[in-house]
Amino acid sequence: MSYKNEQLHEEKVFKDPVHRYVHVQDRVIWDLIATPEFQRLRRIKQLGTSYLTFHGAEHSRFNHSLGVYEIVRRIIGNFENRDRWNNEERLLCLCAALLHDLGHGPFSHSFEKVYKLDHEHFTQQIILGDTQIHHILERVEPAFSKKVADVIDKTYEDKLVVSLISSQIDADRMDYLQRDAYFTGVSYGHFDMERILRVMRPIDDQVVIKSSGMHAVEDYIMSRYQMYWQVYFHPVTRSAEVILSKILHRAKYLFENNYTFKLKPFHFISFFQENVDLNDYLKLDESIVFYYFQLWQEEDDNILRDLCERFMNRRLLKYIEFNPNLQMNEWMELYRLFQEAGIDPEYYLVVDSSSDLPYDFYRPGEDDERLPINLLMPDRNLKELSRHSDIVESISGKKRTDHKLYFPEDMLLKLTNDNPVKKQILELLNLEYSLEGAGEDAD
Amino acid sequence: MSYKNEQLHEEKVFKDPVHRYVHVQDRVIWDLIATPEFQRLRRIKQLGTSYLTFHGAEHSRFNHSLGVYEIVRRIIGNFENRDRWNNEERLLCLCAALLHDLGHGPFSHSFEKVYKLDHEHFTQQIILGDTQIHHILERVEPAFSKKVADVIDKTYEDKLVVSLISSQIDADRMDYLQRDAYFTGVSYGHFDMERILRVMRPIDDQVVIKSSGMHAVEDYIMSRYQMYWQVYFHPVTRSAEVILSKILHRAKYLFENNYTFKLKPFHFISFFQENVDLNDYLKLDESIVFYYFQLWQEEDDNILRDLCERFMNRRLLKYIEFNPNLQMNEWMELYRLFQEAGIDPEYYLVVDSSSDLPYDFYRPGEDDERLPINLLMPDRNLKELSRHSDIVESISGKKRTDHKLYFPEDMLLKLTNDNPVKKQILELLNLEYSLEGAGEDAD
Amino acid sequence: MSYKNEQLHEEKVFKDPVHRYVHVQDRVIWDLIATPEFQRLRRIKQLGTSYLTFHGAEHSRFNHSLGVYEIVRRIIGNFENRDRWNNEERLLCLCAALLHDLGHGPFSHSFEKVYKLDHEHFTQQIILGDTQIHHILERVEPAFSKKVADVIDKTYEDKLVVSLISSQIDADRMDYLQRDAYFTGVSYGHFDMERILRVMRPIDDQVVIKSSGMHAVEDYIMSRYQMYWQVYFHPVTRSAEVILSKILHRAKYLFENNYTFKLKPFHFISFFQENVDLNDYLKLDESIVFYYFQLWQEEDDNILRDLCERFMNRRLLKYIEFNPNLQMNEWMELYRLFQEAGIDPEYYLVVDSSSDLPYDFYRPGEDDERLPINLLMPDRNLKELSRHSDIVESISGKKRTDHKLYFPEDMLLKLTNDNPVKKQILELLNLEYSLEGAGEDAD
Amino acid sequence: MSYKNEQLHEEKVFKDPVHRYVHVQDRVIWDLIATPEFQRLRRIKQLGTSYLTFHGAEHSRFNHSLGVYEIVRRIIGNFENRDRWNNEERLLCLCAALLHDLGHGPFSHSFEKVYKLDHEHFTQQIILGDTQIHHILERVEPAFSKKVADVIDKTYEDKLVVSLISSQIDADRMDYLQRDAYFTGVSYGHFDMERILRVMRPIDDQVVIKSSGMHAVEDYIMSRYQMYWQVYFHPVTRSAEVILSKILHRAKYLFENNYTFKLKPFHFISFFQENVDLNDYLKLDESIVFYYFQLWQEEDDNILRDLCERFMNRRLLKYIEFNPNLQMNEWMELYRLFQEAGIDPEYYLVVDSSSDLPYDFYRPGEDDERLPINLLMPDRNLKELSRHSDIVESISGKKRTDHKLYFPEDMLLKLTNDNPVKKQILELLNLEYSLEGAGEDAD
Repeated sequence: MSYKNEQLHEEKVFKDPVHRYVHVQDRVIWDLIATPEFQRLRRIKQLGTSYLTFHGAEHSRFNHSLGVYEIVRRIIGNFENRDRWNNEERLLCLCAALLHDLGHGPFSHSFEKVYKLDHEHFTQQIILGDTQIHHILERVEPAFSKKVADVIDKTYEDKLVVSLISSQIDADRMDYLQRDAYFTGVSYGHFDMERILRVMRPIDDQVVIKSSGMHAVEDYIMSRYQMYWQVYFHPVTRSAEVILSKILHRAKYLFENNYTFKLKPFHFISFFQENVDLNDYLKLDESIVFYYFQLWQEEDDNILRDLCERFMNRRLLKYIEFNPNLQMNEWMELYRLFQEAGIDPEYYLVVDSSSDLPYDFYRPGEDDERLPINLLMPDRNLKELSRHSDIVESISGKKRTDHKLYFPEDMLLKLTNDNPVKKQILELLNLEYSLEGAGEDAD
Repeated sequence: MSYKNEQLHEEKVFKDPVHRYVHVQDRVIWDLIATPEFQRLRRIKQLGTSYLTFHGAEHSRFNHSLGVYEIVRRIIGNFENRDRWNNEERLLCLCAALLHDLGHGPFSHSFEKVYKLDHEHFTQQIILGDTQIHHILERVEPAFSKKVADVIDKTYEDKLVVSLISSQIDADRMDYLQRDAYFTGVSYGHFDMERILRVMRPIDDQVVIKSSGMHAVEDYIMSRYQMYWQVYFHPVTRSAEVILSKILHRAKYLFENNYTFKLKPFHFISFFQENVDLNDYLKLDESIVFYYFQLWQEEDDNILRDLCERFMNRRLLKYIEFNPNLQMNEWMELYRLFQEAGIDPEYYLVVDSSSDLPYDFYRPGEDDERLPINLLMPDRNLKELSRHSDIVESISGKKRTDHKLYFPEDMLLKLTNDNPVKKQILELLNLEYSLEGAGEDAD
Repeated sequence: MSYKNEQLHEEKVFKDPVHRYVHVQDRVIWDLIATPEFQRLRRIKQLGTSYLTFHGAEHSRFNHSLGVYEIVRRIIGNFENRDRWNNEERLLCLCAALLHDLGHGPFSHSFEKVYKLDHEHFTQQIILGDTQIHHILERVEPAFSKKVADVIDKTYEDKLVVSLISSQIDADRMDYLQRDAYFTGVSYGHFDMERILRVMRPIDDQVVIKSSGMHAVEDYIMSRYQMYWQVYFHPVTRSAEVILSKILHRAKYLFENNYTFKLKPFHFISFFQENVDLNDYLKLDESIVFYYFQLWQEEDDNILRDLCERFMNRRLLKYIEFNPNLQMNEWMELYRLFQEAGIDPEYYLVVDSSSDLPYDFYRPGEDDERLPINLLMPDRNLKELSRHSDIVESISGKKRTDHKLYFPEDMLLKLTNDNPVKKQILELLNLEYSLEGAGEDAD
Repeated sequence: MSYKNEQLHEEKVFKDPVHRYVHVQDRVIWDLIATPEFQRLRRIKQLGTSYLTFHGAEHSRFNHSLGVYEIVRRIIGNFENRDRWNNEERLLCLCAALLHDLGHGPFSHSFEKVYKLDHEHFTQQIILGDTQIHHILERVEPAFSKKVADVIDKTYEDKLVVSLISSQIDADRMDYLQRDAYFTGVSYGHFDMERILRVMRPIDDQVVIKSSGMHAVEDYIMSRYQMYWQVYFHPVTRSAEVILSKILHRAKYLFENNYTFKLKPFHFISFFQENVDLNDYLKLDESIVFYYFQLWQEEDDNILRDLCERFMNRRLLKYIEFNPNLQMNEWMELYRLFQEAGIDPEYYLVVDSSSDLPYDFYRPGEDDERLPINLLMPDRNLKELSRHSDIVESISGKKRTDHKLYFPEDMLLKLTNDNPVKKQILELLNLEYSLEGAGEDAD
């Protein structure tokens, strides 16, 4: 039998808290999971800094990747014998599902922004470069790795295949909403996935939803909305993210200014220099980051040391609602006052904004332009979701943005009381009633 | 108000997947959680190597410690207004519950065995030494830290207080069974804790169970039994544990034999020398261990390098049932054959045994001698659980032991087929049908 | 001790699948539950005919009434020590919660419409009349029964007390959404009630929600919306409801036209005559209704017999979407054709409409005018929910109506094929593609 | 296409709280569900009088029958492509699973004992007699109804087919344990059915369990044990059962003694005369029973009236532990004293015993002799479960019996205090501390 069609002697299962069991029958999938590149995902948390807000959120991207694979496996199982479905592409879909997040590094969001990286770029490199993953894929058939990479890159010609892992109701989203809800313990994030899978139909170049299943999809969209605002954009998580970014900035700044670290930060140097190769990238998992942050708690540089202590020991920044567009004067005033107080505003006075578009049917020209969700009506016509669902219509295309200003309350309170700057800052920040609420507190 | 009695302005809550919410009202508890010593527990997995078998088992000791605190908090809430209960000791119980695992390090089991450490010793040191934890406890009242340490050490005079966190049905066990079941996703580990808490009664120096709640306790004992054999002693987890131990052994051996590591293993040196002080100990969290294991994948020493590659990339050892007591000859023969084949049996031929005593009413003289579970009968007399429950009686005091032999199948298969040693080894290991079953497979 | 303050020797608990346990400490509550009037609620299904769509929905109003009591008990527990809260009214709230649905009869909706009854009227009568319930309440204190009746009637002066069981986020709704979701097995209906209870605050004459809990309330509103359209208005349930109404109509019609029933329908006579007294009303539970429907399957009247057979054996009517306002001509045409075919359209051609207003902040002049949900903002001001929540704003005040036309497909298909009426009817009903979907089928 | 192989145009699903969805593809199954004989199961509670102890236990046998069908459907799905499995018998298994409880009447246990009936006899009659069920089965193929009846009767030649619904780990037990746990809300009754289904293998004339799944089976056996003692034999449920039996006895006694009922009890007469035919039997569902019990609350006979009032309004009998074998003297004394007090001991002094054999590997000669559970070992040999599992071994074959004495406490307390009989009775019943515990109280 060819490697491509080789089935395991006996099906393997992974016990999974979200999907109960993840089932593997294909030798190729089993081998991909066993590679160092895939096992590395165990050392990268799915939700980055969220564990500092929700202590259960310690699950890894390994966890999630298996889950996406399992959902696609189930969808395809339902598609077998459907007209449109070409079962030849089964293995391609499974591989792309399993590997779609392969290029993620630790705390991707901050690393990418500060060091100008792109995890999607590295996903492509791992699949196409000289890696164990690549060699396994090429054993399937020549140029198979390119196909997998293209599906993940959304450039693969069969858009139906692409849509399984990249659309507004794809396996990726369905897994992470449920998984993140499970591990954080929040009561949002639940929807009837079994029902959604049952009403998915492959039609031309897209997966559509039988209209009888519309309410399950509404529920999914609402779950997504709630998870964004309750979990992903939680201000305490963002506070940790702000500190993390500033650590990365400061370390780079020091490196560029020839600061002498107590131990040379080997793993970081190519990041500072913005010429990271695949090998460097794969080595930098979360444990390496924590190793350095621990060391840097003993560095001489006050700012680096303080920020690392904050991050490792969860002494986070406080926050208030603050819209920099509307409050430009306050912003400039605070900036000046922080300087005067000797607290570097570049590191300690940070505005962070989150925004979410819960569902949109068409956003031409945007970077991550997404396909609408279409319903298959009883008369076999398609109808875009928001034209049939009042609830979805009501939130469709409405972008919500939230701005917060982060600052170190403890440092401010340590200023002497006769320092006139202290009083002015506290007043501008309305500190008498706004200090509550940070802390690992869902209330 | 004194620090001891200080309540938070508004109750804080932690969202917890197992207990839904963990509630904190006391300033002292809030402050203890915020210390570096306690936050460090986030970087130590509750279940050590189990994540290599159950990918969901990535939760930390931080997680569990909050859970034990919460259970004790609820028990005490039920005890208020009970005759026997002295509410003065409320805060003592809460602190001891929160801090009882404070001295755990990464992969405690292996580290303790190889480097002759004792996490309980470090728990005492952290509470009594010059730490933030210590200073907070001393603010409660002088010598309060000693009381907390004594409760955890089981030497505190009020055995009722001790029993809340150290007995056969204590808050520690109740939390970890449920939590480990939740994160692994297994269907064992569930029991009706709410009911058990309701039927607990403080009587003299122990917590007893109203006999009407006996069945809930039976269910708990059975959950414990199942979790031991299905999760804690899972042979794949033990396979990873075997490799881990051998890495620690090898690194120490190399250090003692003046091997030159590419990067000096600063963090490990006091461990190799068996003179670990508190500061060294606190620094060695799991990310540091992973950092070194990653580096050691590039060491020149074949054995260290191979073992680290195995651990980091989950290339585990295979196993067969093997009782060294009954199979001494096979053991010696295999040992000899491995040497002949050039595979060092000290590192690659390992017997590992697990044994469990699901419940025992009296084990005089044993190290962790435990109190029996007593039922409060309708006539107000006490009756030891196994004398009232058929199920518990049937398993009481029955120790079950399981022996397995671990070895690197891949190395054996790589021996050339004309090597007579290969054939002999494979025959002794019955490799035609026993190789199945390892792998992250619950089947 | 007075009866009012009498506590049970030991707290009693009911095992409840939704709230885990229902706790009773007060003798009064225990005694009320033990009355025949309350036990009668065991013989009345909470969801009427829904069990014909969702086979799990066989739970009784007894079930729900305990649940509402338990939620109010928990809310009050959280309110203790709050400024506004007058603990004197604790027992009043508990009694009103427990008894709020006492006047429901079997399949209330249809009975009330056909026989011009009002369950709220009977709730008042049971509490104020010569019943065991009444005598227990009067033992609490003279005129206490009137207070309880007033709270349920929403005329009690303290609107805070009223709002616990009658508002847009009251204990009644919170229980039934969760309970009906549990027993039907649908995945909607879940929300974080524990969190909502934690953020409820008594302020003046209302219960408000701390704004930090807004998302939990959004989730509740969405659950409500989904439950209405997925469960309560399910067209199969409505089909059974239509048949039931027609049975009640037919039996009354026959009685009024001096038809001789094989067994005189004693229990129904006062209903036919629309002079039901309390005693008659209390006797007519669901088992009595089923008893007669079983008998009537053997009546001589074709219509009564057929309808009863349909209801008892779940041979329901089929349906199509049909808006009588827009399709008046088709309606009249169908009516005529049914007559021509010998199928009485009064009983076999029925339009049924459902409509729902998921949330509204102010509907002056409407019968069940409801108070808005107000958020307590950090600055201590109140803000109406839909002015703060985009999601709620988007659905606020939007009434959605759904019309369906029900008819007996089997009767139509039995018409001979050369009957020209048959063809015309089938065409008007578009029967080639619309017959799918009825049946106990969630798809 | 033949009726036998006819598939529904689109699969139908039933939303099920326990198995999420019940799937129906076969026209035959769909038609069987729609028969009056099967729909009748909606009017018979699965757990008889248990709803008086656990208010959630209001689910019907209809509910359970669908569940057993669904489990068998899943087992067969796993068996396809297995050597031993003959897919021809698929439909036979499904029909037998669906119909296995068809002959149950209301409160079967008491009716069968008092009126000498056997529900299995009626199951056979419904399948083989002139019913809609029978005609549908005969359309499948001639004599198919006989095959189905034989499978249910355990006389069918292929014992593998029989074992799916009648063995110690059959679909019947797996459904009811989970379902009854779900509806009562108890935390017992859960086990990993998905895993058990995965490790079932058809071997010769039995279904065996791969040894790797032993722990899941242990968990199932323990669930069964807990459900028996915590739910099925709950003394409050038995108290209601005792009253029910006595009502049936009394009504028969009165009938035989020419008592004149206010309304002739038509439905009961053939039961009193012990010549019940199929038609009479099918008519007597639970609503009919409740109808008569309601009427009989107004009968002149004191005993019948009192017992009916007790049953309908849940005024149950109290109980104490009482072993009639060991306490014969007390028994005779109490009997005499009750007579003296004017409380007929035939109706008001009742010993009831429950006993359970949690698992047995071989009980030759017993009526419901059951096959052992066999494990399929890695060496392909079979091993009886209790020889491999310590836990199961420990409880295997151990019969536990529990005796209780039921009596009307309220009647006793109403005796005047100067009545010497009163004091003697209360003393013999130890009423000072044993009266607690009855009532819908899990404590």
